[in-house]
Amino acid sequence: MSSLTASPANPAKPHAFATVFALLAPHMAELDRYLRGQLASFEPEIRAMADYCIDTSGKRIRPALVFLSGWRGPAAVTPDLVRVAAVVELVHLATLVHDDIMDEADVRRSRRTASREYGPTAAVLLGDALFAHALHLATQFPTTEICAAVSDSTRKVCAGEIVQTLRRRSTNITRADYQRIVDLKTAELFRVSCFLGARLAGSEPGYVDAASRFGRHLGIAYQIYDDLVDFFGDESRIGKTLGTDLASGKLTLPLLVLLERLPASERATLTAELAGEQPPQLALRLRQMRDLGIFGIVADAVQAEIDAATAALREWPGYEPTPLLLGLCDVLQAQVAGLRPAA
Amino acid sequence: MSSLTASPANPAKPHAFATVFALLAPHMAELDRYLRGQLASFEPEIRAMADYCIDTSGKRIRPALVFLSGWRGPAAVTPDLVRVAAVVELVHLATLVHDDIMDEADVRRSRRTASREYGPTAAVLLGDALFAHALHLATQFPTTEICAAVSDSTRKVCAGEIVQTLRRRSTNITRADYQRIVDLKTAELFRVSCFLGARLAGSEPGYVDAASRFGRHLGIAYQIYDDLVDFFGDESRIGKTLGTDLASGKLTLPLLVLLERLPASERATLTAELAGEQPPQLALRLRQMRDLGIFGIVADAVQAEIDAATAALREWPGYEPTPLLLGLCDVLQAQVAGLRPAA
Repeated sequence: MSSLTASPANPAKPHAFATVFALLAPHMAELDRYLRGQLASFEPEIRAMADYCIDTSGKRIRPALVFLSGWRGPAAVTPDLVRVAAVVELVHLATLVHDDIMDEADVRRSRRTASREYGPTAAVLLGDALFAHALHLATQFPTTEICAAVSDSTRKVCAGEIVQTLRRRSTNITRADYQRIVDLKTAELFRVSCFLGARLAGSEPGYVDAASRFGRHLGIAYQIYDDLVDFFGDESRIGKTLGTDLASGKLTLPLLVLLERLPASERATLTAELAGEQPPQLALRLRQMRDLGIFGIVADAVQAEIDAATAALREWPGYEPTPLLLGLCDVLQAQVAGLRPAA
Repeated sequence: MSSLTASPANPAKPHAFATVFALLAPHMAELDRYLRGQLASFEPEIRAMADYCIDTSGKRIRPALVFLSGWRGPAAVTPDLVRVAAVVELVHLATLVHDDIMDEADVRRSRRTASREYGPTAAVLLGDALFAHALHLATQFPTTEICAAVSDSTRKVCAGEIVQTLRRRSTNITRADYQRIVDLKTAELFRVSCFLGARLAGSEPGYVDAASRFGRHLGIAYQIYDDLVDFFGDESRIGKTLGTDLASGKLTLPLLVLLERLPASERATLTAELAGEQPPQLALRLRQMRDLGIFGIVADAVQAEIDAATAALREWPGYEPTPLLLGLCDVLQAQVAGLRPAA
């Protein structure tokens, strides 16, 4: 996944970045200190590996959702929010470590993946240790509610990854299948990040629910955006080569829509490429996507989810977190605008 | 690992089996029903894989420790104990799934491993899903204590596996290193199984502590026994070939002691075999082990841990679980006696 925190190529609302990310700087610094402090709890042999992963991340979107959903003013960096931000980030990092084994990915954000750096077998166990540590931190709250929410989300994220992996190179995937995978593997952790932030800040149940729905839709929007990046991103900025989803047979929304719109003969060759029976023709597929307006169609799907996220908070305009969370929608819109390929 | 529940070749105290395992039959049946019931909570794509793993296990040593440590008479199969027995078993099954990826093992107990059956990438995620489900069940107790104990143990088990994996093919391992790996990867889950059983049954703190120490020592004893099985077991009974630790460069206690006792020239060739620089000479090493009395030395190490386990319960003879837990020591002793190679 690419970063939500980088400055946009086409900042539709430049103040959104300035507002949201400047506000979060002390929280993120505290989170970093906290995560580094956790390294001491790992066995010496794992410490350097865990440190490498924490360093690799750099995005911190889920912690941002925790901090913003639980927002009570810029000075309030509460230990509970920092700890739960660490929990969701560690779960996310663990899934990245295991994902990169599945994908046989060598590079993530211009750095070697843990799988490449330490070997896939050590990476399996490193991911396990990060998961276990996240759950361990989640048990340090007074009630089981936090731990239950985190373990349930972790289970769903794993399920999403499994379904995606089992379906790889299958071209018999519907939009509903894609939606389900995105809901499990990405939207769930976004949702629970907002839930935990709002809940730990003591928000009323209606707001906790609204923030959770916001998080889910933002997560879906973000994943679709991320799938667009794989075709329309800037390689030097995202730190990996384009077209990896096509090459690995991952049927994301841009490819699903392209398949729907191509004439039958071309559809057959694209299907063969996705199935790994023919080498992928990235340049051809990008040209077809441009000719058929695929970017616009998929960008509209991102916008529909952003609209749903916005609607979830409509009845809560007076709440402190609301404008900040909506600021994230502006950020994502600007990111999508920054991708738009030359006509 | 081989089974503690199979009948011994040389049953020193045959009543131990009859007593302990007949008593546990209703508990194990209930556990099986509970685990099968959990399958419905997995996404459809994972259900068959999870079912396959639950089927593969068949040993249930850790659940036995839960039930026996929390023993309150044969009729008391309490839902709390069944659930926590499922938790420790699922954590164990998850580690087996991930272990078999590390070991590139094709067969476990005469069946294909999950990694072989579904491929290593699906196995990574299947292990994750089993871990996450175990933790999820652990959050269903009223306090965070159970979940905290389980997540902390899971973390240690993962750490033990990592250390063992990183040290594979290294011959620079001391007995202290071996002890630490065994403590983390095996003894910890035995310990926590006894802790959870005694704790959930409402035992007084002194007994919870004693049962935990018992579990830890039994776990160490069991792991050393299991390492002996890899050289002195019966292939048809353990369901895999002998000498896998030598072949994969895993420096277990029988190999450590052999290295210590061999003359320098032979030590160099064994070191080269462990390092993977020369093909393993299993028949030669078995002959040397017999000539140097390695079996007896390692069996004594098992006995020392059984003695320590027994000592942990010395001050609690009147407690219901005590004779049953000590019965497990008899079972393990008989298992070791069943291994003794012909002179």
